Amino acid sequence: MINFQTSPDQYHHWKLNVDGAVATLNMDVQEDETLAEGYKLKLNSYDLGVDIELADAVQRIRFEHPEVKVVVITSLKPRIFCAGANIYMLGTSSHAFKVNFCKFTNETRCAIEDDSHHSGRRYVAALNGTASGGGYELAIACDEIYLVDDGNSAVSLPEVPLLGVLPGTGGLTRLVDKRKIRRDRADVFSTLAEGLKGKRAKEWGLIDDSFPTSKFQESVDARVQEIVEQSVSLQGDVAKTSFGESEPLETNSSLDGIKLNPLHLEIKPAGLEYKYVNVVFNREQRYADLTMRGPEANLPTAPDEIQKLGESYWPLHAYRELDDALLYLRVNEPEIGLVCIRTVGKIDEVLAVDQTLAANKGHWLVREIILYMARVLRRLDLTAKSFFAIIEPGSCFAGCLLELLLASDRSYMLNNPDERVELATSELNHGALPMSNGLTRLQSRFLAMPEKVDEILGQNGRLDTEAADAAGLITFAPDDLDWEDEIRVAIEERTSLSPDALTGMEASLRFAGPETMDTKIYGRLTAWQNWIFQRPNAVGPQGALTNYGKPTQAHFDFKRT
Amino acid sequence: MINFQTSPDQYHHWKLNVDGAVATLNMDVQEDETLAEGYKLKLNSYDLGVDIELADAVQRIRFEHPEVKVVVITSLKPRIFCAGANIYMLGTSSHAFKVNFCKFTNETRCAIEDDSHHSGRRYVAALNGTASGGGYELAIACDEIYLVDDGNSAVSLPEVPLLGVLPGTGGLTRLVDKRKIRRDRADVFSTLAEGLKGKRAKEWGLIDDSFPTSKFQESVDARVQEIVEQSVSLQGDVAKTSFGESEPLETNSSLDGIKLNPLHLEIKPAGLEYKYVNVVFNREQRYADLTMRGPEANLPTAPDEIQKLGESYWPLHAYRELDDALLYLRVNEPEIGLVCIRTVGKIDEVLAVDQTLAANKGHWLVREIILYMARVLRRLDLTAKSFFAIIEPGSCFAGCLLELLLASDRSYMLNNPDERVELATSELNHGALPMSNGLTRLQSRFLAMPEKVDEILGQNGRLDTEAADAAGLITFAPDDLDWEDEIRVAIEERTSLSPDALTGMEASLRFAGPETMDTKIYGRLTAWQNWIFQRPNAVGPQGALTNYGKPTQAHFDFKRT
Repeated sequence: MINFQTSPDQYHHWKLNVDGAVATLNMDVQEDETLAEGYKLKLNSYDLGVDIELADAVQRIRFEHPEVKVVVITSLKPRIFCAGANIYMLGTSSHAFKVNFCKFTNETRCAIEDDSHHSGRRYVAALNGTASGGGYELAIACDEIYLVDDGNSAVSLPEVPLLGVLPGTGGLTRLVDKRKIRRDRADVFSTLAEGLKGKRAKEWGLIDDSFPTSKFQESVDARVQEIVEQSVSLQGDVAKTSFGESEPLETNSSLDGIKLNPLHLEIKPAGLEYKYVNVVFNREQRYADLTMRGPEANLPTAPDEIQKLGESYWPLHAYRELDDALLYLRVNEPEIGLVCIRTVGKIDEVLAVDQTLAANKGHWLVREIILYMARVLRRLDLTAKSFFAIIEPGSCFAGCLLELLLASDRSYMLNNPDERVELATSELNHGALPMSNGLTRLQSRFLAMPEKVDEILGQNGRLDTEAADAAGLITFAPDDLDWEDEIRVAIEERTSLSPDALTGMEASLRFAGPETMDTKIYGRLTAWQNWIFQRPNAVGPQGALTNYGKPTQAHFDFKRT
Repeated sequence: MINFQTSPDQYHHWKLNVDGAVATLNMDVQEDETLAEGYKLKLNSYDLGVDIELADAVQRIRFEHPEVKVVVITSLKPRIFCAGANIYMLGTSSHAFKVNFCKFTNETRCAIEDDSHHSGRRYVAALNGTASGGGYELAIACDEIYLVDDGNSAVSLPEVPLLGVLPGTGGLTRLVDKRKIRRDRADVFSTLAEGLKGKRAKEWGLIDDSFPTSKFQESVDARVQEIVEQSVSLQGDVAKTSFGESEPLETNSSLDGIKLNPLHLEIKPAGLEYKYVNVVFNREQRYADLTMRGPEANLPTAPDEIQKLGESYWPLHAYRELDDALLYLRVNEPEIGLVCIRTVGKIDEVLAVDQTLAANKGHWLVREIILYMARVLRRLDLTAKSFFAIIEPGSCFAGCLLELLLASDRSYMLNNPDERVELATSELNHGALPMSNGLTRLQSRFLAMPEKVDEILGQNGRLDTEAADAAGLITFAPDDLDWEDEIRVAIEERTSLSPDALTGMEASLRFAGPETMDTKIYGRLTAWQNWIFQRPNAVGPQGALTNYGKPTQAHFDFKRT
């Protein structure tokens, strides 16, 4: 059982130091503290356990240290920044684990960029030694990259030449789409096992600058101070896109962080019990029922009260639970292929919370909560399981919870005149919770009829089953006579299908419309990496990944496909 | 050896009828006329041979029958339009063949859309019977889809539920991106083996209309006549985007087609010899040398003279040869992983041809030639082999041939003051030959510095090696002492790498910037399909594809990945 909850006092591999406006994330991987047997984490190489800590640290900086303007990522090991994902870990992992590992590490890097883009925090990769493979991929997830010029340290992506796999944690995509390296140089760099050092790396755009060893620390410090000084204007500037509109952040909001407490999770044979999220495993039938409870009544509406409530405030706490449940399901319950999502609660209470969030979106904590909800929903979009939304009496698919329905592959809403069931939209459906493709879930849904989006959002009222059906918000509206049978059959049919075909199908149908760097990473690059992770040239007995570091040599079937 | 050349008198599976402004492509697959042993092409199912004929027919309509305004695709078999790719063919094919088969069929469907988009010819799928799988994927490549309402005929994508693979010939992408079907409906449709019939298929947007059997033919005919009548205004309207600018087509240009003659190809053990294209196989070292000869001097400059020259006009003939050579290399020489591209000829002559093409871009034949060159270059972009451009004295990488360099993964240009080597741009580098992502190759190359594109295009002169290097047009400029060694080592290194990793790497690095429906099909959807085509759930002994139609049942490993 892999646990995604951690906190700085439990970290094995990272040291988080916060000093005023600057946080430093020091990587110091303990080679024996591995998540599984059979490999050692040498040279700051990482496994999922290392990345769970990194993800936690980035999350905590946002909520617990909002005063931080710059995050420096560096290494405590001499001459090595990070050697990337541990190759022996990859070599001994199942295909499914490799895929889940890559997805999570991708999400962590995208979360860094989300912080930079929406909250204006700048990430500086201070490469005090070589950054290879995933080490360099971590660096290019940062805003700026500085490399020590010690005659030896390099940046490199040796996956293709050494391992026969891709720099698949966003590496190839970020090379040409984020840093906009010329494609022929990207080609050379990605096939050059030893990588490039200071001068040429800078000339090609792989790093922002290099400094000699004796001046490295002070040069990085000087640059960090420069960013801190620019940060107020910067923050106001970039953060204006966080809600899909151009309203600048309030700058007078309090910057006292809140504490992210551990979640209370009871893991039972039959499922997971959190405070607001409940998951029941139907293992025999290979599906889970996930129920999310709406908020209590009379939650505070003023930012300072919300700040006092802190982590226990419903939207933050409930979405943290949902996030944890999704990760749990992905990694620990691979045979569960379908999740039926229900909500329980009062639509009015959800809408009240959404109204509070929307009204205070300029407050740093509210902004972070909204951005976090958006990330959790994107995690759902990217989860390789089918999702059905089941809309029954007593449910509260409204506003931020309506997104759960819109994120689902399909939905069933009871149509019974004696038991009114309703949906509702809120200000949060207007653009606060975008998908990876940059669209709202309503926009993605109504690509053919963009006017529908405004129509639905403009209604501002409740939609009962017939109205929801007419509006195109739900897939099926069975009556009470058919309800149970229809859902039972739908579940049986879904779970009987090839899990691989469903993964590929959902990855194609969920992301209509534009592609962004994020969707390219999750769609194009990841799909190619998954393909390669199946190929004998990588993972067969004579494959490059299998034979790495062994006296035996890789042998390829040279047919190009 | 698979031969991609054919012509209507050799077709086994299609009958092309041209009647004034309307061409009808009748599908009538002969079940025993297969490209390989071991399967029968029942129910208008297809293999690569069937699609080679379709691609040829679409191509010929454009060049030989420019007067055609509407192409109707229908079937001569009763109650069945097309059952899609033959499942037994897929089940007995190697992974590499499946991948190449899908790529070619995708290119054929994109060529249909290219004709519609740029030449204003409208494609009507007249589904006189069921269109399932690839049959429906062919239909959604058309502009309009009409289905007979006989109580039985349906459109369907049964790949996921029946075969455990994807509708990967653009099907999933076109559902949500072209026809903009709501994603939950696309989800239902793509998991419903029996598909949907007339009324619901229309309501969901899967077809444009359905007509009862008795009225099917006359209704389709009426619609076709309607389009023909609108076609003059339509053609002027849509075709204006064909050159990346808004100049309308000349409408007084002659609409007498030209004949596409068979290419003269000598296949020798050592390589391929066409008139302008020469390919040498270095099989031991797993690379090929492909040399393209530039045009002769004093080619005609007036459209009517070009029309008289017809198919033998250099740009058309040479690019037809290049197209054929690329297809040959893909399918018949899978172990050749690298193609070194050279040109031989006079830069002035290439520029003269480009100038003629640009000056007469409104003439239907010139337009078709330019659009065809663009398609061939995109075929190169999408070929799963590495390309190195080798720029030596006597070469003519100018204008349309400069695109070969820009399409290559990297380039080597001799730097020797005694032997001047030059590159040059022409009007054709401004947007006439776009990549699948909608950008020019120069724009893709200089994403980081868009101003460079205008700078280079504005120079309008020749660039010698140092100027080309300074402009960022080439990767390496070795001097004559290093030249041979450097290229030899580069070839050795490239061909030693994992062919799969190279395929995934190139598919990521070649398509920086925006994604379009085409790149989504070739990148995202294809990569997922390739992955699934490797998975035991599809192709293992108990896989769904393997077991289709057998008394044995598929058994899945239900872990979701």
